[in-house]
Amino acid sequence: MNMPENDKQSLSMVTCTAPVNIAVIKYWGKRDEDLILPMNSSLSLTLHQDQLKTTTTVACSRNFQQDRIWLNGKEEDISNPRLQSCLQEIRRFSRKRQNTVDSTSDVSGVSHKVHICSVNNFPTAAGLASSASGYACLVYTLSQLFGVESEQLSAVARQGSGSACRSLYGGFVQWKLGEQLDGKDSLAEQVESESYWPELRVLTLVVSAEQKSVGSTSGMHTSVETSQLLKYRADVVVPSRMEEMIRVIRERDFPAFGELTMKDSNQFHAICLDTYPPIFYLNNMSHRIISLVHRYNQYYGETRVAYTFDAGPNAVIYTLQDHLSEFVQVVRHFFPPEVSGEEFFKGLPVCSADLSEELKKDINMEPTPKGIRYIISTKAGPGPCVVKDPNHHLLGADGLPKKSVISD
Amino acid sequence: MNMPENDKQSLSMVTCTAPVNIAVIKYWGKRDEDLILPMNSSLSLTLHQDQLKTTTTVACSRNFQQDRIWLNGKEEDISNPRLQSCLQEIRRFSRKRQNTVDSTSDVSGVSHKVHICSVNNFPTAAGLASSASGYACLVYTLSQLFGVESEQLSAVARQGSGSACRSLYGGFVQWKLGEQLDGKDSLAEQVESESYWPELRVLTLVVSAEQKSVGSTSGMHTSVETSQLLKYRADVVVPSRMEEMIRVIRERDFPAFGELTMKDSNQFHAICLDTYPPIFYLNNMSHRIISLVHRYNQYYGETRVAYTFDAGPNAVIYTLQDHLSEFVQVVRHFFPPEVSGEEFFKGLPVCSADLSEELKKDINMEPTPKGIRYIISTKAGPGPCVVKDPNHHLLGADGLPKKSVISD
Repeated sequence: MNMPENDKQSLSMVTCTAPVNIAVIKYWGKRDEDLILPMNSSLSLTLHQDQLKTTTTVACSRNFQQDRIWLNGKEEDISNPRLQSCLQEIRRFSRKRQNTVDSTSDVSGVSHKVHICSVNNFPTAAGLASSASGYACLVYTLSQLFGVESEQLSAVARQGSGSACRSLYGGFVQWKLGEQLDGKDSLAEQVESESYWPELRVLTLVVSAEQKSVGSTSGMHTSVETSQLLKYRADVVVPSRMEEMIRVIRERDFPAFGELTMKDSNQFHAICLDTYPPIFYLNNMSHRIISLVHRYNQYYGETRVAYTFDAGPNAVIYTLQDHLSEFVQVVRHFFPPEVSGEEFFKGLPVCSADLSEELKKDINMEPTPKGIRYIISTKAGPGPCVVKDPNHHLLGADGLPKKSVISD
Repeated sequence: MNMPENDKQSLSMVTCTAPVNIAVIKYWGKRDEDLILPMNSSLSLTLHQDQLKTTTTVACSRNFQQDRIWLNGKEEDISNPRLQSCLQEIRRFSRKRQNTVDSTSDVSGVSHKVHICSVNNFPTAAGLASSASGYACLVYTLSQLFGVESEQLSAVARQGSGSACRSLYGGFVQWKLGEQLDGKDSLAEQVESESYWPELRVLTLVVSAEQKSVGSTSGMHTSVETSQLLKYRADVVVPSRMEEMIRVIRERDFPAFGELTMKDSNQFHAICLDTYPPIFYLNNMSHRIISLVHRYNQYYGETRVAYTFDAGPNAVIYTLQDHLSEFVQVVRHFFPPEVSGEEFFKGLPVCSADLSEELKKDINMEPTPKGIRYIISTKAGPGPCVVKDPNHHLLGADGLPKKSVISD
């Protein structure tokens, strides 16, 4: 491209990736809607980015007329209040830091407009909370560009989407409730790294949703307004569950981890049902998966597999490497897929396994053909990463999305 | 029939009927499993027996060799512990009473064996708690035969099936929690009679169930053992809801009655979901009915229709006479029946109504053909009744079920 040298240099660009996280102690309900402060602490596992990640490029230039954003190839409205909060907060932290270092020049370009381009390597239809990886990636990338310290990112990411702060770290991450009114101590921190429990495996079972679900922001708001059980959960149940969850993770005690994970998922959906009007995220297929997991565990007399469900009907399954291939085969047997191969099974490969007739008979469920659309197989993974190779930038030298990024 | 005169006279026979009741504040969880004492008070409406009732004939004779029971035309095992509790308790009360009146002769025949024959005028498939009307009818009929005072029947019926004690009265009935350890004060009493709120109407929407549900006795037991939210509901939420429910019934305040009824149904199902393993009584069709009711009310900006669900997927709808025909038409529109006429709509007739295009458009749901199998239309009704006409006895002079009662 023919571009004057000073124009070229005026464009700074950074690309980063960030992971999806799946809570095992659920966040549901804000005590402060403006600051996005939760009613209870929560805890999640960060999933590996080889299977599920958001990639974001941010460019800034004195030549940009306005802030702009492209999500999955489509330009979106930058005036979204949560996006604006993140941008403002990052710029504020950046200026604060520059003022302590050098008060005269704008080394980072924080006064310039930004172009943001973000893509997920998984379909939105997967119903995985893409807002968590999305905001974590945005905030992390902006911080790399403008020079903001990592301890400050939790508070910024949280203002994009509460659970985004948990995607700033790898492995097991807790988002602490905090006590301060201004939310300064409501921060994410790593409990154990992604390598702490190497046998742990994760399957996402994407089911066919018939109806569109209530969004989590408005659902959560209605629960706070109307559920009489929510406050009791947040104040009494969750604090002891957080302690127990951290303990069983440290002990790598899968049966205890799995049981508590399932109980907390169920309680979250119970709160949704206690909301008025009630919110249903689980459908008949979710019920069948839950039933299958309990019957499978029942057969072995121990918790070998656990489910958790977020604000939608798709199941996330936790299990150990040793039981993975058999359970995948159980899923294939009771939810015979329409298609096979990579269309149905994506991600980390699993060995094939034979199912005993006794197991199939003992589970005693009618198979549901096509009940599950596809499976994504993954494991624990690291937090956000900087992408060094400039070929991977999503924006071109002109500050606009590259052709390969644009959707039709 | 040729039978010696003294044999004829040795047979005493009584036939009674008893109603179904549908709780608006739900009973879920026992504080004492042996005495069947509840963790919280509950409140129900007794439905009219013209549409839904159990009929029971009890005969006693010195010639009977053993206690026997026929349910819906089939002989069942009399050794069922709950049946035995009811029989023993009634006989105990009867003897106690006789001892105070005449200590020498057995006027009532309480020392004789009984034959019991019981039928429902509604299919078991309707998923209506037939155990409540069944045990209420059994206990009431035995009390008529053996001379037991009505104040004592609550405690006996409760030991057959907790909610049976509420079927001993017409109209609005509360089953008070009680405080005594022996359960003597855990009794049903009428709040208002069946004629107190004459505009109130009831529809049972029988849906197609795919899976068999967990029975309420074992479900309740598992909830008590595992749900952390149940105790809070029983101790904190229900006491104030009972007060409010009695108040809004006395004020005939339908919007408040309907909203509280829906909230309590939802909270009961939330507790089922918080149980481990979780219990699902609502299926996708139940969810659709719930959604339809909320959208219908939303359209009018007031609660005109309310749902409640017991331990199964069928909805019971409360509404007022004025809104009945339109809502039935709404149900017909969004759940187009496979068959029409009496096959689909049973019970108290409703006028036909036209639906405005605006209403249909505003509700904005895809119709679900055959989603509802049939509707039973009814209203509040009286408590148990003695059937005077001996032609209606279910047992013949030989003490065995009449031919018309026997099923194939």
